[in-house]
Amino acid sequence: MISERIKNMQKSPIRKLVPFADQAKKRGIKVFHLNIGQPDIKTPAPVLNAIKNFSQEIIAYGYSQGELFLREAVSDYFKNYNVEVSPDDMIITTGGSEAILFAFSVVADIDDEIIVFEPYYTNYNGYAAMSNIKLVPVTTKAENGFSIPSTEEIEKKISNRTKAILVCSPNNPTGTVYPRKDLERIVKIAEKHNLFIISDEVYREFIYGEIEYTSMLHFEDAKDRVITVDSISKRYSACGARIGYIISKNKDVLNGVMKLAQARLCPPIVEQVAAAEAYRMSFSYFKEVQKEYKKRRDIMFNELKSIDGVVLELPMGAFYMVVKLPVKDSEHYARWLLEEFNYNNETVMVAPAGGFYSTPGLGSDEIRLAYVLEEKKLKRAMNILKKSLEVYPEKK
Amino acid sequence: MISERIKNMQKSPIRKLVPFADQAKKRGIKVFHLNIGQPDIKTPAPVLNAIKNFSQEIIAYGYSQGELFLREAVSDYFKNYNVEVSPDDMIITTGGSEAILFAFSVVADIDDEIIVFEPYYTNYNGYAAMSNIKLVPVTTKAENGFSIPSTEEIEKKISNRTKAILVCSPNNPTGTVYPRKDLERIVKIAEKHNLFIISDEVYREFIYGEIEYTSMLHFEDAKDRVITVDSISKRYSACGARIGYIISKNKDVLNGVMKLAQARLCPPIVEQVAAAEAYRMSFSYFKEVQKEYKKRRDIMFNELKSIDGVVLELPMGAFYMVVKLPVKDSEHYARWLLEEFNYNNETVMVAPAGGFYSTPGLGSDEIRLAYVLEEKKLKRAMNILKKSLEVYPEKK
Repeated sequence: MISERIKNMQKSPIRKLVPFADQAKKRGIKVFHLNIGQPDIKTPAPVLNAIKNFSQEIIAYGYSQGELFLREAVSDYFKNYNVEVSPDDMIITTGGSEAILFAFSVVADIDDEIIVFEPYYTNYNGYAAMSNIKLVPVTTKAENGFSIPSTEEIEKKISNRTKAILVCSPNNPTGTVYPRKDLERIVKIAEKHNLFIISDEVYREFIYGEIEYTSMLHFEDAKDRVITVDSISKRYSACGARIGYIISKNKDVLNGVMKLAQARLCPPIVEQVAAAEAYRMSFSYFKEVQKEYKKRRDIMFNELKSIDGVVLELPMGAFYMVVKLPVKDSEHYARWLLEEFNYNNETVMVAPAGGFYSTPGLGSDEIRLAYVLEEKKLKRAMNILKKSLEVYPEKK
Repeated sequence: MISERIKNMQKSPIRKLVPFADQAKKRGIKVFHLNIGQPDIKTPAPVLNAIKNFSQEIIAYGYSQGELFLREAVSDYFKNYNVEVSPDDMIITTGGSEAILFAFSVVADIDDEIIVFEPYYTNYNGYAAMSNIKLVPVTTKAENGFSIPSTEEIEKKISNRTKAILVCSPNNPTGTVYPRKDLERIVKIAEKHNLFIISDEVYREFIYGEIEYTSMLHFEDAKDRVITVDSISKRYSACGARIGYIISKNKDVLNGVMKLAQARLCPPIVEQVAAAEAYRMSFSYFKEVQKEYKKRRDIMFNELKSIDGVVLELPMGAFYMVVKLPVKDSEHYARWLLEEFNYNNETVMVAPAGGFYSTPGLGSDEIRLAYVLEEKKLKRAMNILKKSLEVYPEKK
């Protein structure tokens, strides 16, 4: 009786193991969460203070485009990247989520296609279902650090219904940061086939020194085809604030997004006030954050590399890694960790990577790990993971 | 190059006169806004205090279903209406806007139809475009207070693609409150044709003593087909907080909505904390608010009835009325008010009603007025409106 499109839509694969984690906790097992990208870093004080000092007497509708003071603060922030983004080049959205939904709607009609590199952020599937478009996967591989495949492989997937290529760097779920030359290739492909480029850059600051960051906004020549999706969630450890934005220098795109923005009236006001304070902070804030995450990444990477049969290249960004394990079925393994295993009454929760692929069967021996725990906890969690693989019965 | 669906989508007809208002203000003209439903009532102190006292150190992701403390507070609120809504019967949304979008998606597939009584809240069009469904209008008329037409007239519009009937009472834009017998008729029609009922009840408390309020939630027998859409925006004068919810006792519907809710992760957290305080307030809060709006409604209604050629029945709820004026083209009139008219350097901004109809040509001699100004200002604004009609050249 409900619509087919909703009936056929998958439940979030990241969240579907939650009941098993809850049961483990009820049995008195401590569960370390490596499964979700919820940072444990405190939200910066200026953001929290802005909320405490919220002084409007009426929480009234704001501008559909978002408040000017926030757009100005974001515009200033981009100067750190030598990128000129004016307050009029962007529309504030309710989280990066809404920015993605708007981007999909504005570039594609029903049954149109968007190229995406798998494994990819699973919620793209939700937005694709909501806007009735098709995501066409180009597979990237653990063996070469999930780097962008050859131009030929990408072009094989382009049809006359293809409207855009979606790129996420630093990448969720793989942690891969694409080098400039690979992004250049994507720009060339987009030019050749007249496609939009949707660039999800929410992990922009999460890079750890091994590679220079390149934004799609750095390609001046491609400015009419680049649509940048961004969010404060990870950058300022404010996932629950639901503030993001969409940037485009293409006026048709921005006017189109504006229609969608007007239909939902405005993004939340209190959080816009808070977000502006985040963007007004000095860039030195990220130094400490990067140091902390780099330390965690190194712990996780080194622990994993010490396990027999693990396939993994050093991920240079975000706070995730996708790891190939010597297990037959990572979904079974993830559930077994919660239902049957414990090490001194502790276990870990991981995200089976199958849900990050749309090609059936792929990722069935991979998991995604998020390094969002502080050093001591992370070390304990990694030790538990290691111990679990020593006794897990369904090995390859 | 952008998608057809967005290219073909109308810009918000309520907001498109804004540039003319801005120009009038630049010329030194004071503009009274009767065009938008932005209440001037202060957001209640407990809501503002909850924001000031927000004490989480990490603004983390919340539950996709919404925080339990808020769902419990909403559940308790419904006891005032003798309606049992459990915290598990609802999903918190980012404004009533998202609730409407979710409702459309879950009941209808591409090109499916939803019956709606015109004139109707224009943003329904935006959500329909976003979810690629069709709104099929059944016209209501100023002459009989925009009441629900005959069952025959409604059934004429039902096709094999019809999935739901959308009802909004108290109504935006007309202010009409549907009596129980009319809602009963809609329930009967929905049962006969196996349709969902989407009930937009965001103005539930805005009734002024002439009629008893009936919610679609009062119809126990229809509970599997009723999907209620609600919001704190008007109820607690917190439009910018973007907190709403969707209620359904039909588990398939709620599970379906949950998939959409998971894709966008969670509604804003700070505002959920604040909204819970609103719902914990005593119902006596509404007494004062109702008294204030009733006074305003009576001022507006009486002033309008004293103008020759005006067609209008007493609207018993919300804070809008749709008025038939003795003008040839209300869009021209609305623009003329801003561009050419002033009375002692003051003018009014009104919403031409054409945008609230989807049948072409209808509403071209009607405007929507919102009584969201306090008594003194409202009296001045109504006097200006009266004076303007004395000199407006394009009369019928």
